[in-house]
Amino acid sequence: NGFAVFENLKLDKPKNGFTVGINDDVTNLSLPLDTNAPNTTPDGIVSCKFWGLGADGTVGANKNSIKIIGEHRKDDYAQAYFAYDSKKSGGVTVSHLRFGDKLIKSTYLVSKADFVACHNPSYVHKYEMVQDVKPGGTFLLNCAWDVNELTEHLPADMKQYIAKNNIKFYTIDGIGLAKEIGLGGRINMILQAAFFKLTGIIPIDKAIESMKKAVVDTYGKKGDKVIAMNHQAIDAGIANVKEVKVPAEWADAKDAPKEIVLDTDREDLLKFAKNIMIPANNQLGDRLPVSAFKGIEDGTFPQGLAALEKRGVAVDVPAWIPENCIQCGQCSLVCPHAAIRPYALSEDEIGKAPEGYKSKKMIGKGCENLKFAINVSVNDCLGCGVCITACPAKVKALQMQPIETQQGEQKNFDYAVKNVSDKELPFNVDSVKGSQFKKPLLEFSGACAGCGEPAYAKLITQLFGDRMYIANATGCSSIWGGSAPSTPYTVNKQGKGPAWANSLFEDNAEYGLGIYLGQKAIREKLIEKIRSLSCCDAERDEYLATLDDGKKNTEATKKLVEALEKCSCPDCAEILKEKDYLSKKSIWIFGGDGWAYDIGFGGLDHVIASGEDVNIFVFDTEVYSNTGGQASKSSQIGQVAQFAAAGKRTSKKELAQIAMSYGYAYVAQVGLGADYNQTVKAIAEAESYHGPSLVIGYAPCINHGLKGGMTNSQIEVKNAVAAGYWHTFRFDPRLKKDGKNPFQLDSKAPTTSYKDFIQNEVRYSSLERQFPEKAKELFENAEKAAAAKYDKLQKLSKLYE
Amino acid sequence: NGFAVFENLKLDKPKNGFTVGINDDVTNLSLPLDTNAPNTTPDGIVSCKFWGLGADGTVGANKNSIKIIGEHRKDDYAQAYFAYDSKKSGGVTVSHLRFGDKLIKSTYLVSKADFVACHNPSYVHKYEMVQDVKPGGTFLLNCAWDVNELTEHLPADMKQYIAKNNIKFYTIDGIGLAKEIGLGGRINMILQAAFFKLTGIIPIDKAIESMKKAVVDTYGKKGDKVIAMNHQAIDAGIANVKEVKVPAEWADAKDAPKEIVLDTDREDLLKFAKNIMIPANNQLGDRLPVSAFKGIEDGTFPQGLAALEKRGVAVDVPAWIPENCIQCGQCSLVCPHAAIRPYALSEDEIGKAPEGYKSKKMIGKGCENLKFAINVSVNDCLGCGVCITACPAKVKALQMQPIETQQGEQKNFDYAVKNVSDKELPFNVDSVKGSQFKKPLLEFSGACAGCGEPAYAKLITQLFGDRMYIANATGCSSIWGGSAPSTPYTVNKQGKGPAWANSLFEDNAEYGLGIYLGQKAIREKLIEKIRSLSCCDAERDEYLATLDDGKKNTEATKKLVEALEKCSCPDCAEILKEKDYLSKKSIWIFGGDGWAYDIGFGGLDHVIASGEDVNIFVFDTEVYSNTGGQASKSSQIGQVAQFAAAGKRTSKKELAQIAMSYGYAYVAQVGLGADYNQTVKAIAEAESYHGPSLVIGYAPCINHGLKGGMTNSQIEVKNAVAAGYWHTFRFDPRLKKDGKNPFQLDSKAPTTSYKDFIQNEVRYSSLERQFPEKAKELFENAEKAAAAKYDKLQKLSKLYE
Repeated sequence: NGFAVFENLKLDKPKNGFTVGINDDVTNLSLPLDTNAPNTTPDGIVSCKFWGLGADGTVGANKNSIKIIGEHRKDDYAQAYFAYDSKKSGGVTVSHLRFGDKLIKSTYLVSKADFVACHNPSYVHKYEMVQDVKPGGTFLLNCAWDVNELTEHLPADMKQYIAKNNIKFYTIDGIGLAKEIGLGGRINMILQAAFFKLTGIIPIDKAIESMKKAVVDTYGKKGDKVIAMNHQAIDAGIANVKEVKVPAEWADAKDAPKEIVLDTDREDLLKFAKNIMIPANNQLGDRLPVSAFKGIEDGTFPQGLAALEKRGVAVDVPAWIPENCIQCGQCSLVCPHAAIRPYALSEDEIGKAPEGYKSKKMIGKGCENLKFAINVSVNDCLGCGVCITACPAKVKALQMQPIETQQGEQKNFDYAVKNVSDKELPFNVDSVKGSQFKKPLLEFSGACAGCGEPAYAKLITQLFGDRMYIANATGCSSIWGGSAPSTPYTVNKQGKGPAWANSLFEDNAEYGLGIYLGQKAIREKLIEKIRSLSCCDAERDEYLATLDDGKKNTEATKKLVEALEKCSCPDCAEILKEKDYLSKKSIWIFGGDGWAYDIGFGGLDHVIASGEDVNIFVFDTEVYSNTGGQASKSSQIGQVAQFAAAGKRTSKKELAQIAMSYGYAYVAQVGLGADYNQTVKAIAEAESYHGPSLVIGYAPCINHGLKGGMTNSQIEVKNAVAAGYWHTFRFDPRLKKDGKNPFQLDSKAPTTSYKDFIQNEVRYSSLERQFPEKAKELFENAEKAAAAKYDKLQKLSKLYE
Repeated sequence: NGFAVFENLKLDKPKNGFTVGINDDVTNLSLPLDTNAPNTTPDGIVSCKFWGLGADGTVGANKNSIKIIGEHRKDDYAQAYFAYDSKKSGGVTVSHLRFGDKLIKSTYLVSKADFVACHNPSYVHKYEMVQDVKPGGTFLLNCAWDVNELTEHLPADMKQYIAKNNIKFYTIDGIGLAKEIGLGGRINMILQAAFFKLTGIIPIDKAIESMKKAVVDTYGKKGDKVIAMNHQAIDAGIANVKEVKVPAEWADAKDAPKEIVLDTDREDLLKFAKNIMIPANNQLGDRLPVSAFKGIEDGTFPQGLAALEKRGVAVDVPAWIPENCIQCGQCSLVCPHAAIRPYALSEDEIGKAPEGYKSKKMIGKGCENLKFAINVSVNDCLGCGVCITACPAKVKALQMQPIETQQGEQKNFDYAVKNVSDKELPFNVDSVKGSQFKKPLLEFSGACAGCGEPAYAKLITQLFGDRMYIANATGCSSIWGGSAPSTPYTVNKQGKGPAWANSLFEDNAEYGLGIYLGQKAIREKLIEKIRSLSCCDAERDEYLATLDDGKKNTEATKKLVEALEKCSCPDCAEILKEKDYLSKKSIWIFGGDGWAYDIGFGGLDHVIASGEDVNIFVFDTEVYSNTGGQASKSSQIGQVAQFAAAGKRTSKKELAQIAMSYGYAYVAQVGLGADYNQTVKAIAEAESYHGPSLVIGYAPCINHGLKGGMTNSQIEVKNAVAAGYWHTFRFDPRLKKDGKNPFQLDSKAPTTSYKDFIQNEVRYSSLERQFPEKAKELFENAEKAAAAKYDKLQKLSKLYE
C-alpha cells in the first residue's frame, strides 16, 4: 500500500541472513505440498499467509507461532515476513510464513500458499485471498456464516476458486467466541489455535501447551483472569473450527454487477480513484499497468483522495446534542481527523438540508439570521472521542454512539460540505472559533485515533491552506499526511489547497528551503516585469504594495490577474503564463522530533540561519513514533524508549532556545490542549513574520501509553503544561524593533505535581515497575530539570527585556 | 601529492562540459605537432605543461593566458586543468593546458606536451619534467645558468633526454629580471611573455597588447608604478629568452651517485620515507608498485614523516639574541610550525652541544644549574615571523635573518631535540611557559606561513599528545595535519603520540565519538577483569581509583602494566593482550568552522548531546579556508566571502551558546594571541571535564587579508578581542555543582574601535571599496551586533549565577 514496514524474526539459532533456524523434535509435515506450483520453494517447505487488521493481534500471534514452532522443530528452518499497511488505524497486515527442513531461499512474499487465513470477514469483498491457496490447500475464514450465508456473502470469484481447486475450506467464529469469553475484539489466540489445529505443523498437544505457556509469559502481570480467558480462547479455537462442505454449484457462481459510488465532481480525482486508488487499496497495486499513470508521470497525485475512502472503521462515533452546545468550535479544533465540523447556515440552506438535519440558533452579533450545526462524518471518524473530552459545555454536547445508529448523519455532513456557503462571520479567522468555519484542507488523515499531531496541521491549513506549500519530513506526519495512494491534503471550493511533498528524513528543511527559493526566483522575475508594466496601474500598485503580506497579496493578486486577463498587451500575457507563482505563498516545513532534533537538525539549523521566509512546524512526540518508539534528543529524562530501555539519562534538547539564539527567527512552543488561543496566535504570528519561523507543538502519541487512552490526548497536553512538563512561549523578533521584549513566556508556573503527571504515562510508569531505584533517581532529576527550565525561561524573559 | 584541487576555466562561450570555446581571429598554430605521440589528442591540438611554485603566480598567469588566447581565437577550444600540491606553503603547482580547433576530448593530465615550462630552477633535481616534452618539442627553464652551468647543474637523465629527442631548449633568468625591475619574486609576467614568444600561439604583437591590458585591469588600483613594472616585465620576457645550443655530449651524460640522508633512527619511518614518501613527493607516486604498501595495507602511516622533509623554503628565519631574551616561551607557543623551541640544558648537555650552541643562565627557582636556549629548525621554518611579533621582550630577542646565514643553527636544533632530556621544571606543565618545554607532537605542519590554526593543535599535543586520539574533519586542519605522504603528528621519545585519522567532512564528530566508544568498550571489559584480579593489589587499586583522571591514570597504568608483566598468572596475561587500551585516553575531535557550524553541525550537536567524554576543538577562521573562502555560518556581518560577495547579511551563529544550552557540556571560546593563559586554562579544563567539551579558537587565515600580512596573525587575535570582535569565555558545568557560576566571561569590554579593527582586513575593507553604501550599513549592523553580543554575554553571566 505504498509504504510498508518489514520485519524479520531472529530466533535462537540464526543460521544465515534472514533465514533463521528453529529447534526441537517434531512430527512430519502434515500439509499437502505441491512443489510444482509456481513461486514455490523446493520440496519440504510449507508456506502460510495470514490477512489481519492492524489492531487485531494477527502479527503478534504469528510471531508467537514462529517461536512455538521453533521450540519444537530443532534444526529446521523458518522465514517470516510481515507487511503492514501504512494506515495508522484500521490498516491491513499480511503475514508471510515459511517452515521446512530445507534451507529457505525464497523471497519474502508468499504468493502460492499451503495455508491461508483471513482474520477479518469484511476482507472477502476487498482482497483476493483464497486465490493464493495452492490447489488442494487450506483456507480458514474468521466469520460467523454458515454455508448458506457464505454462498450469499462470498464473491463469485472466491467461491469459484474454492470449488474448482479442491480447497479445504474452514470457518471459525472468532469474533463471536471472543465476545463470549470476554475478550472483546481480541481474536488472535482463537485464530492461532485454529491454525495449529488445521496445519498440524507440530503435534497439537504440544502446540496447546506452548500457546498456554506463552499466554502466561505475556499476560502474567495482568492477573489470573486475563490468563484464564486467553487459555479459554485457545481451547475454543481448537474446538470450534468448522469444515465447510463446499457446494458443487460454487464452481459456477456469478455476482450481480456492483456499483462503486465515488462522491466527487472532480474528474481528475474520479479517474485516479478508479484507476489507481481502489486497485492499490485492494492490494492489487502490483498489477497496475504503467499506462495507469499516463499524464501523471511526474508523480503528482490529486489532492483529496482520502475523502473518497470513507472507511467506516470506528465502532462508536460522536452524536451532537444541540441543546447542550455552546458553539465554541473546540470539538472541531481538536479533532485529529477533521471528522467533526461547525457550520453556519442561512435559512435557505437549512430549508434545503436533508430531513433530520439538526441545527440551532447561532450565537454572535450579526448571526441573528443564521443557524448553527455540528456535523460528523461518521465514516471518516476514527472514534477516538477527543472531541468529547474537549467539549467545555456544562453538560457535554457530544456523546459516543454506535456507528450503526449514526449512519444517517453522513448525508448531513456531506450536504454541509457541499452546499453551505462561506460567510462573513463576526469571528476573526485567526481565532479559535473563527478558524473552524474554514474548511480544513487536511481531511480524514490516516493518523492513529486520537493522535496529537494532525490537529496542528489541520489548523494551519484552515488558516493558510489556499496558498500553502508543504515540505514534509519522513515520519508519522508523512504517513498520515500522504500515504500512497491516499491524499488527505485537499482543496477548497476554488480548487486551491496545499501543495504537499515528502523528501528524505535527513534533508527536509533543505527541501522546503529549495521549494521556497524556487518560487521566490520565479516570483521575483515576475515582480520585475510587473514593476515595469505600463498598464493595470491600480492593480499593479496594490500588488506591489502588499508583496510581503500573505493575506493581502492573495487578494491583490486576484485583482491583478483579472486586470491582466482583461488587458490585451503582450506584457500582461507574458506575466499570466506564470500566474500561479505571483502571490505570496505560505511555505511550511513539517516534521517530527526525530527529524527536527536529530537527523534533520543540521539542515533545520541551516534553514533557520538563512533568514529566509519559511515556516517550520515540529510535531513533538518526544520519540521516533513512526518507527516504533526510539529515543530522540527530544526525549525527556526518565523516559523509557528504544535505545533508552533503562530510562533516558540526558535532558531534552533546547531546540527553541537554540533557534532563538539567532535573534532573527520567530520561535514558539505551543500545546494545543493547554492553550487554544496561544496556539492559534503563535501559528498566525509565525506565518506573518517575514523571516524564518519555528513552532514546536507538543503532541501525545500512542507510544506514550496515556492512562485512559488517546481520547485524553488533549487533556494530557493541558496537564503537561500545568505540571511544568511542557512550557509555552513565543519569541517575536519584530517586538525588539518596537523596543519591546521579544520573548513572552505564556505558560504559568506549575500548579500540579510533575511526578504525578509523568506517572500517568506508561513510558514513565514502566520504568518504576522495572527499575524502581533508577526511576526514583531519574524522576527526581527530571523534576529538577523541569523546574530549572522554567526558571531559565523566566530569566530569559528578563535577559531579552 | 595525495590531495589535489582541480579547476576548470569557463570562458565567454562555453561549448560543452569542461571543454570551453575561445574566440577571435588567429594565426595558424606554429608549434610542431606530433599527433602520433602517445596520449596525444587528435591532430590540431597543442598541449602545454607548466611547473610552478604555489606562490609564484604560475597558475594565475596561465589562467590569464587562456583568457588572452580566448580573445583572439574565436571558435577554437581550450582545456585547462590545474593540479595543486596540498602543501599550504611552498608546494608545487602543475598547469595542464590544451588548445586547438577541434573539440578536446582528452582527460586532463598532459603527459606528452608540445611545450613544457619549469618556473623554478630547484625543480630540476626533484621532478621529471623535460621527459614530458614530445620529441622535437620545446622546453623552457627559468634559471640564470649559461650552457656550462647547465651542464653542471642539470641531472644526467634530463640532459640525455634533451639531446636524444631534439628538444628545443630555452632559458630565461626570470628571478634576476624580476629583481632588477623591482618585482621581487614575481616572475609570472616574465614567464608568461616568454611562453607567448616561444609558442606563437597567437601573433606576438596581439599577445603583448593583451597582456599589457590585463596588467592594467588587474593592478590598476595599485598605481602607475606597479603597472609600469609589469609592462617592463612583459618586454623583458620577450627580449630575454635564450636558446640553448645543446652540447652533443649531453646524450651521454652521467651523474655521480647521490646520497639522501634521512635523520631518524626509527626503522619504520626510514622504510616508509624511502619507499613511499620520497617518490610521492617527487611526483612519482603513480609509479609506486602495490608491494610498496606491504604490511601497511590498512592505511596506517608512521607518525613523524614531516620531520624528514626539511624543505628549507623560508627566505628569512628567526635568529635568537640571548641577551634580550626573557625566557617566556611565547615565541614557541605561537609558532604554527613548531620550528622554534625552548630547551633547558644541564651543564653536561651544554658541554656536549655542537660548537657555537648559544645558551644563557636559566631563570626560575631550582633552575640555578640549568642553561636556557632557544633553537630554530631553520629548514622547517616557513619564515612567517609570528614568533618575532609575539616576542614581549623590551628589545626583541629574535630577528629575521636570511636563511643562508642561519643554516648552522639546524644542527643545534637537531642536537637539542635528540639529546636534551626531559626535566622536572618549576613551571606547571599546564601553564604557558611549562607547556613549551614539552616536545610538540605536531611538528612542521604544511600550514600556510603564519596560519592561526596549528598553534592550538600543537599546544594540545604538548599537553595530552602521549595519550591522544584525534578525529579530524576534512578542511585545512586535515591538510596541514596529514597531507599524504607527510605526517606532521609525531611521537615522543617513548614512541607515544597522537593516533590521528581523517574521515568525511560531514561525519567527523560521529567518527570521533565512534573512536571513543570503541576504546571505551574495550577498556570497560578490561576494567571488569581488573576489578576481579586477585593479584597486584596496590597497582590494581591505584588504577581503579584514577579511572577518570587522564594524567594520574596514565601513571597508574604504567605501574599496573609493570606489575602485570611481573606476575605470571593467566588473568594478567589476558589483560596484557590489550594493554594499549588500559589507560584513560584523551579523545579530540578537530575541525574548522565550515565543519562545525555548517556541514558537520548535526553530528557535532548529537555528540555534545550524548554526554560522552570527548573533546572538540574548532579552528574558527570564519570562512571555508581550505576550498578558497566560502562563507560559513561562522562568517560575520559585512564579511566578504564566496557566496557573500556583497557582504554577509546575517550574524555569526552562536555555536558556543547553543552548546551551553545543554547545560552538561564544557564550552569555551579562546583567542591565543589575546590571552595565552586563558587559552591554556580552557584547553586543560576541557580535557579534564568528564563529559563533552567544546573549545572554539579564533584563527586568522590568509583569506582574511590582514594588512601587514600573516606575521601579525596573533596580534590580530589580540586586536579582535580588544575591539569586541571576538569574545573569550568559559562555561564549566562542574562549577554549578559547587554552587558557583558556571559561566565566566573572560574578555573585557571593548577598548578599541570595532570598525577600525575590521578595516585592517581585506575581507571587510574590500566591501567598502566595492559597495561603499552597503558597507556603511553592514558595518554599522556588525558593530551593533557585536555590542549586543557582549551585552548578552554579560547578561548570561547573571542568568547562570
